[in-house]
Amino acid sequence: MFGARFLARALRSCSSAPCPGHRPPARLSVRDALGAQSTSGERVKVQGWIRSVRSQKEVLFLHINDGSSLESLQVVADSSFDNRELAFGSSVEVQGQLVKSPSKKQNMELKAEKIEVVGNCDATAFPFKYKERHPLEYLRQYPHLRCRTNALGSILRVRSEATAAIHSFFKDNGFVHIHTPIITSNDCEGAGELFQVEPSSKIKMPEENFFNVPAFLTVSGQLHLEVMSGAFTQVFTFGPTFRAENSQSRRHLAEFYMVEAEISFVESLQDLMQVMEGLFKTATMMVLSNCPEDVELCHKFIAPGQKERLEHMLKNNFLIISYTEAVEILKQSSQNFTFTPEWGVDLHTEHEKYLVKHCGNIPVFVINYPLALKPFYMRDNEDGPQHTVAAVDLLVPGVGELFGGSLREERYHFLEQRLARSGLTETYQWKRKRQQISFQLFSSQHPGP
Amino acid sequence: MFGARFLARALRSCSSAPCPGHRPPARLSVRDALGAQSTSGERVKVQGWIRSVRSQKEVLFLHINDGSSLESLQVVADSSFDNRELAFGSSVEVQGQLVKSPSKKQNMELKAEKIEVVGNCDATAFPFKYKERHPLEYLRQYPHLRCRTNALGSILRVRSEATAAIHSFFKDNGFVHIHTPIITSNDCEGAGELFQVEPSSKIKMPEENFFNVPAFLTVSGQLHLEVMSGAFTQVFTFGPTFRAENSQSRRHLAEFYMVEAEISFVESLQDLMQVMEGLFKTATMMVLSNCPEDVELCHKFIAPGQKERLEHMLKNNFLIISYTEAVEILKQSSQNFTFTPEWGVDLHTEHEKYLVKHCGNIPVFVINYPLALKPFYMRDNEDGPQHTVAAVDLLVPGVGELFGGSLREERYHFLEQRLARSGLTETYQWKRKRQQISFQLFSSQHPGP
Repeated sequence: MFGARFLARALRSCSSAPCPGHRPPARLSVRDALGAQSTSGERVKVQGWIRSVRSQKEVLFLHINDGSSLESLQVVADSSFDNRELAFGSSVEVQGQLVKSPSKKQNMELKAEKIEVVGNCDATAFPFKYKERHPLEYLRQYPHLRCRTNALGSILRVRSEATAAIHSFFKDNGFVHIHTPIITSNDCEGAGELFQVEPSSKIKMPEENFFNVPAFLTVSGQLHLEVMSGAFTQVFTFGPTFRAENSQSRRHLAEFYMVEAEISFVESLQDLMQVMEGLFKTATMMVLSNCPEDVELCHKFIAPGQKERLEHMLKNNFLIISYTEAVEILKQSSQNFTFTPEWGVDLHTEHEKYLVKHCGNIPVFVINYPLALKPFYMRDNEDGPQHTVAAVDLLVPGVGELFGGSLREERYHFLEQRLARSGLTETYQWKRKRQQISFQLFSSQHPGP
Repeated sequence: MFGARFLARALRSCSSAPCPGHRPPARLSVRDALGAQSTSGERVKVQGWIRSVRSQKEVLFLHINDGSSLESLQVVADSSFDNRELAFGSSVEVQGQLVKSPSKKQNMELKAEKIEVVGNCDATAFPFKYKERHPLEYLRQYPHLRCRTNALGSILRVRSEATAAIHSFFKDNGFVHIHTPIITSNDCEGAGELFQVEPSSKIKMPEENFFNVPAFLTVSGQLHLEVMSGAFTQVFTFGPTFRAENSQSRRHLAEFYMVEAEISFVESLQDLMQVMEGLFKTATMMVLSNCPEDVELCHKFIAPGQKERLEHMLKNNFLIISYTEAVEILKQSSQNFTFTPEWGVDLHTEHEKYLVKHCGNIPVFVINYPLALKPFYMRDNEDGPQHTVAAVDLLVPGVGELFGGSLREERYHFLEQRLARSGLTETYQWKRKRQQISFQLFSSQHPGP
């Protein structure tokens, strides 16, 4: 339908014989079983991996997890079910009745009538131990198993939920989703090193290009989105982005995901900040309400106190200060910064963190940055002598810069002057001659028609 | 929050002065204006590009489009507004009252009180002409403008809607979304040529690898999803995929989007086919109901009769035939095939098209393919003498194969035999020694604990 191929595959890990004549029990996820409101008396079937085994004289307790939630389902079975194969890590299928649990620890539990081991696990060879919290560095060695741990499971469920929230926020607000190209011949940001792409057989013959021109992995879909915003008013993309920087910092990755949006007919930074605040709050609220236990786990073991901070952020309107005010605040601070704050110089992470704290740990929009610090296409505020452009960064507690944006300069003569001043006119002319597409993308940053 | 950077940007294309004291008119998209049910008498503001201008003695009619829908909004203005700048292609902002249209052609129209030209357009230099339907080959020359045409606009809105539908189908059915890596050291499918990735400065020094090992663009997230399905039961990915095949066919692209899903504890192909049929029907219905005019346009100019075919597909249950039955049907056909149908040989596009037609133009699942045709990891049906595996392809009218899937072989000794028979044991051993991660991903295809 749209140049895509669809594939669906299944991992068969059950060797049970086809079901006999009578009606098969309903299959339930652990999440749905735990959330069941009533006990219909019907037989159900739950499948998953054993997280714990507790064998008592007459009763066997199992905890089963299938990745649908952090919490596991308690299975209560007659001790006659006890079996060496029912071990930590094994996968099982349990049939029985879902009943209210007498314990306060959980809402429902499964009274087992049948337990089948789907795949057994040698607990002595299995790298993770029951009840042990392994350090993340240890888990790194087992990429094929680490998602069975609470920490990794929670992070991936939260990421999945946040991804869905981002898509639905933009859809609900009338944005058209665009898959901007991953392989591209343009270097949008012009900063940092690019990954180049060639067929593996030709990598040693760089004189021959597969796409006729050198091709790179995208660093930003901005140029493509700008073109699209000349037809759709509101567009967004949410895809992988690449940097070949050999950086070991916590904030740089060779491959990462980025949300980018372009809006036409914007009248002020206010319009943009509304979208940013809306996206942040919607995504955060959806994650908090759909994965409360996962978030709880992160807050307990990874970022203590973060839950309260998040709720504080959601309850309050984000603040807005100008870059000039920000520099004043930093200058008046008694803190000793490694980089002395000064008008006309970029804010460093230490500055961003101080500003957020100073503003009461609420996200802060910093607007109107010095023209000299920003790319030529950002809109001149014509506010000399401290010449600024209509750019905005959102600073967030614990993160620093989370969003950045700007109004685009739509006045042709301003753009010409800025290009000339930044020595880009020649590149522009050259591109115009050499590469028509580049030129077209480029010129589409101008306002009209 | 998840290794992603968020950016939002805006294209300023409006030079109006800040709004005066009184309450500003509500901003409406063309789609919302057209769909308004009542006329509140309130002043509204609509922005977009002029699609047509009709100047009469006393009245001026404009059609404004902002990309939110195929249909444009009719603006009715006093002829005193007439102005050379109000031309095809210009962008404008119109303020006025939304009223019921006296014409049957549209529901609502905008009675203009103020019209402002945001960006003007030189109609003589603009490559598209009013009322002219330009061939797609012509539009290719103007990638920065072609999305303003009806055809491209509709296709991109449909794609955006289909993308959203795919995400919500999986979310509603409890799947966890996984961003599988784009840059990877594994060659999942082992067929076709890969794109290799290196920093642009090092592309001529292939002896030094940025990632220590040669790195490629993904051809499939299958191996990563299989690992994830060992923790989450139901997972999916929907991202870009790459092939360095120098193919000019209509069905191959260097970069395309693919939906992939893995499900654990699947008991039969039936479970898989349910997901495939559900995904197809949900996505199709959402597109049909949310973009009816866009679909109408495609059916009128691109694929005549397709709308009825789609509705026919949605109303009926998909059919299931075995590969063996399919070959019998083809053999009994009076049609002259270029490739003679024969058991043990792959179905060609001409065969797939014939089968779909034979089955009444309803999508058909073809199941149980010859073992010799399929990869080693598909589950042996143990049904000799015509030995088959539990694989399924969904054939769809007008497309051919749309989905493919299989049950995975979980029995260790079967896998060992198949690996040995396909001469893969050595590769397996080699990978085991050389690349621990590769081995781990690989072995996770086993049923596992």
